[in-house]
Amino acid sequence: MSSEHTDYVSEVKKLLEEVAPFRRSLMGPGNEQTLNVLGRGLPMERLEFATGQRVLDWTVPSEWVLDRATLSDEAGNILIDSNESVLNVVNYSRPFKGWVDRVELEKHLFSNPETPDATPYVTSYYGENWGLCISKERRDTLVDDKYFVDIATSFKPGNVSVGQVYLPGETDEEILFSSYVCHPQMINDEIAAPVALSILARELAAKTSRRYSYRFVFLPETIGALCLLDRIGQTLIEKCIAGFAVANVARDEPLRAKRSRRGDSLADRAIEQLMAEAGTLSRLNEFAPLGSDERQYCSPGFNLPVCAVTRSVADFPEYHTSADDMTSASLKGVSDTVNEFMKLCSVIENNHVYRSLSPYGEPNLGKRDLYPKFGGANHRENKVTGLLWLLNLADGSNDLLHIAKRSGVEFALLSELAAECEAKGLLECL
Amino acid sequence: MSSEHTDYVSEVKKLLEEVAPFRRSLMGPGNEQTLNVLGRGLPMERLEFATGQRVLDWTVPSEWVLDRATLSDEAGNILIDSNESVLNVVNYSRPFKGWVDRVELEKHLFSNPETPDATPYVTSYYGENWGLCISKERRDTLVDDKYFVDIATSFKPGNVSVGQVYLPGETDEEILFSSYVCHPQMINDEIAAPVALSILARELAAKTSRRYSYRFVFLPETIGALCLLDRIGQTLIEKCIAGFAVANVARDEPLRAKRSRRGDSLADRAIEQLMAEAGTLSRLNEFAPLGSDERQYCSPGFNLPVCAVTRSVADFPEYHTSADDMTSASLKGVSDTVNEFMKLCSVIENNHVYRSLSPYGEPNLGKRDLYPKFGGANHRENKVTGLLWLLNLADGSNDLLHIAKRSGVEFALLSELAAECEAKGLLECL
Amino acid sequence: MSSEHTDYVSEVKKLLEEVAPFRRSLMGPGNEQTLNVLGRGLPMERLEFATGQRVLDWTVPSEWVLDRATLSDEAGNILIDSNESVLNVVNYSRPFKGWVDRVELEKHLFSNPETPDATPYVTSYYGENWGLCISKERRDTLVDDKYFVDIATSFKPGNVSVGQVYLPGETDEEILFSSYVCHPQMINDEIAAPVALSILARELAAKTSRRYSYRFVFLPETIGALCLLDRIGQTLIEKCIAGFAVANVARDEPLRAKRSRRGDSLADRAIEQLMAEAGTLSRLNEFAPLGSDERQYCSPGFNLPVCAVTRSVADFPEYHTSADDMTSASLKGVSDTVNEFMKLCSVIENNHVYRSLSPYGEPNLGKRDLYPKFGGANHRENKVTGLLWLLNLADGSNDLLHIAKRSGVEFALLSELAAECEAKGLLECL
Repeated sequence: MSSEHTDYVSEVKKLLEEVAPFRRSLMGPGNEQTLNVLGRGLPMERLEFATGQRVLDWTVPSEWVLDRATLSDEAGNILIDSNESVLNVVNYSRPFKGWVDRVELEKHLFSNPETPDATPYVTSYYGENWGLCISKERRDTLVDDKYFVDIATSFKPGNVSVGQVYLPGETDEEILFSSYVCHPQMINDEIAAPVALSILARELAAKTSRRYSYRFVFLPETIGALCLLDRIGQTLIEKCIAGFAVANVARDEPLRAKRSRRGDSLADRAIEQLMAEAGTLSRLNEFAPLGSDERQYCSPGFNLPVCAVTRSVADFPEYHTSADDMTSASLKGVSDTVNEFMKLCSVIENNHVYRSLSPYGEPNLGKRDLYPKFGGANHRENKVTGLLWLLNLADGSNDLLHIAKRSGVEFALLSELAAECEAKGLLECL
Repeated sequence: MSSEHTDYVSEVKKLLEEVAPFRRSLMGPGNEQTLNVLGRGLPMERLEFATGQRVLDWTVPSEWVLDRATLSDEAGNILIDSNESVLNVVNYSRPFKGWVDRVELEKHLFSNPETPDATPYVTSYYGENWGLCISKERRDTLVDDKYFVDIATSFKPGNVSVGQVYLPGETDEEILFSSYVCHPQMINDEIAAPVALSILARELAAKTSRRYSYRFVFLPETIGALCLLDRIGQTLIEKCIAGFAVANVARDEPLRAKRSRRGDSLADRAIEQLMAEAGTLSRLNEFAPLGSDERQYCSPGFNLPVCAVTRSVADFPEYHTSADDMTSASLKGVSDTVNEFMKLCSVIENNHVYRSLSPYGEPNLGKRDLYPKFGGANHRENKVTGLLWLLNLADGSNDLLHIAKRSGVEFALLSELAAECEAKGLLECL
Repeated sequence: MSSEHTDYVSEVKKLLEEVAPFRRSLMGPGNEQTLNVLGRGLPMERLEFATGQRVLDWTVPSEWVLDRATLSDEAGNILIDSNESVLNVVNYSRPFKGWVDRVELEKHLFSNPETPDATPYVTSYYGENWGLCISKERRDTLVDDKYFVDIATSFKPGNVSVGQVYLPGETDEEILFSSYVCHPQMINDEIAAPVALSILARELAAKTSRRYSYRFVFLPETIGALCLLDRIGQTLIEKCIAGFAVANVARDEPLRAKRSRRGDSLADRAIEQLMAEAGTLSRLNEFAPLGSDERQYCSPGFNLPVCAVTRSVADFPEYHTSADDMTSASLKGVSDTVNEFMKLCSVIENNHVYRSLSPYGEPNLGKRDLYPKFGGANHRENKVTGLLWLLNLADGSNDLLHIAKRSGVEFALLSELAAECEAKGLLECL
């Protein structure tokens, strides 16, 4: 499996525009609509987890049904309306209808003074409260004594639905890609990563052969990962050799990653190599049990080899507000992500262990026509350097990732050279 | 066992003023008087080692008896007098009486040109010489041709006396604190550390429970440690899990420490955590077989987990002179030392290994009421961060010191949170 | 075995002047003449490998016979003549005789524009071409349309000849020194290292006792090392405990070294200690399978503990040109190399493991008269520091190299002190 750079920007744009408006939450029709788009052309199945079901230490909550939420002034003017944006109401807000004075209202209004012109995204999945969200600027215009609140929400039994695409490979050892589908409307901190993984899945599905199997999961953050692990955690313990929890990729920044709890798994080593070649190793952080779904994958009982991969974390200015939209998203960031993950998969698939069949002294490269004759002087020198490192370290104990790290030679070049040496009878692949 | 900051300054002052005047040496009445004060209110016993007794590779020397030592000029004026300060005569000086010319006298006078107004402290435990000590400034005034020396000293059989306080705990695994009692009169480089340990011992003795046993020893430097090891070295090999050789703590400087020969013992790890939290890790040095009694404890046959802990080493300006007195001593340094050692003991006592009872996925903290509701935002965030680290790494293989080091979370907070989680059934203590 | 500094400059000069003119190549009379000089006074034997013989993955080539190679202009003036310098013809050039136009000639001329006044050194051992070498400056004067080329060379069966000096020691564990003899005429990047090793071998041969055996080999680069390994590779795997591939030592620069593939062999540790003491550790590089004969010694099948040691690599200005001659060579560099290797051998020979016979507490140095009485204060302090480190770490598990590295005490001093302690019954040598 090799990788070349492809421009996915227009495909990314089309998909983002299609899924952005869906009203995603922990479950419900917005989630189903989104999964339908992400799974298009893919063998996507749904894993369902009903309200009230125990999943590990947790219980699947009810589905939140939003009819409409409004705030009106005494004159009957609607000031806040969930029909304009679902962000205007606290996700999982309890219902409420009635007049409230301004002092009481303030307790139920959420704004973010750091982004005064944007509506914040607020959730209260497990709370018992009602609330509305409003930009700081608009909030400052609320000067009346009384307001009328009408939050028409309800709760009903539903299903957490995990969209899963499993692409079988030559072995059932598998690579996991996970992203979350639950933040309504937002682009970078939400739907960009599922879109990138959906495209990636289609690219991998189109390959005629895959060494490893691939599992893509699209699920609501936290509760979705808990559901998944409750169902197939044991399988993942046995089969998952590398995994990546992906989020926040619609930014014009290099990839940023966090090691798995193990720290030296295949996932860690592959992403480390990718970042070393990109000159961005300083953006590879040690494991910490904070962040997103890696908290579940890397909990001590599962301890899966899952790294978190993003472009930004919660430090970008539009984080969890209505400003995290198509205008601030980097489509190129999403497209590049697909390319970088293709390269990452290529590294993992090609990470073989070789053993030299001519380990005594340097093999005579000339008589085997292995000295490069074409390409610039620089390319020739890189190739010879790569050959010498490869033949020296290929003693049956080092995989190509190890050789790439120790030598500083690019992984893809080593992989190519290894295939050439294998064809010439100098290496065997173990 | 937890720790809070207490101000011991007045207690320190009282004790220092009481013990400073005693004429300590390798043995003798000054040592006994000092131990009597240090052991007040404590179950202190004496381990005695008689002159001539073999201790390891050494032999206990005789007791040095000083009647009086003077230097007079031709007119009969007394210029140097041990009655004014015991430092005026070389400790263990042989007796001598008679007229000497100035050239001969110079061979027996000791001064320190770097501290010209102070009398140096000089010993000759195993030499065969006589000598007097004098400040450089006064020495320069000696211009006569002849002087009369009268050093009335003698040697007799005696006993090296080790003051030992043993505080039994729930197990007989023990923590050792050692300091030396032999430098006459000096504060920082001597009696401050025994005073700090005496107060510490009383604080620990007052605790209603101790996980570990504690052994405090007060002994003359080198020969005392050799005596102790000769007597109970085997016990220490079996039972001592952490030890600290303490000296030079009456300074206004942060703690300074030297690792044990093992480098990664519980003593090393506890002091490292303490210094990491204080931001003074740069003052934690690698082991070297130089310094004070750690040379004996860390000799290869015993190889005890003993770190040296001080505030200064021999680089403070008053070192080994009469200027190392109450006026230059920092009482606050001594008081802080007690507090820091209380904290150190608290770290060691609370350094448990926990195992998560809910290791699959993150436990639901909300339903267990473990999400902090009170305290500033910062405190709440620290607490959640601590909980997540604790629950993630508590897999039965990491002790709290390991978790504190890896997470950067304060040890005391982790310890508190662990107790809370244990109470809620989330962790078991192994 | 101890080492003192000796000035070998005049011996170096005499030998270099004697061997420089010989026309060395892969084999032939120039190589034999050179080995005759290098082996003078030494028990040098020849290992011979005939043309056509298989050695590991390679085949010994034919011997190249150069009668004469000239380039003449239309007027019959000889412009290039191998009688002036053997560098003027490509080493292993095929024969050719005839008129060529300037365009054709240019394809067969080699110059180095970076050293425009020097003739480059070019080889074509395994090619099928003819060629002449000329300085860039002289090449620019060639403006005629036609030139007459007369390269009178031929090929015949011959023998690669390895000069080997084996000095038996108390054990058959051995130290290997290897250098190459194949570059005609050049000093730094060639014959200086064999000359240094020849002198070193004579010094070691003159020793009355050697703990280890020593093997010196002088051989053509690459093919010679392959021949040697084909013949005695198995012996080296079993017996060689440290080896050094030496080149480019006629420079006024500190030693520069490259670790063996193993990275922590005795060879690595000894050269590391030498460089640490010289303050040049930054010139000790990690292993890379590039460079010279270490590529063969450190191939994965042999994986010998062989470090490369040089003063420069291929980055000195006269590299592979006629300017690498006696005028640019540093005779002092060669002489110093002998001294540094004597010291290196001394480190290896004296690298014993000691065990303290008085491991409980510090031994009483005074009663054994081990406290130094003479020498400056600095020397005395160094000696006491060395003694304390030695007696502390000599627990039967650390060799002197380990103790030197951990303590920062000079190896030679530790070795001296160890002998003293052994004589006093404080240490036993394992």
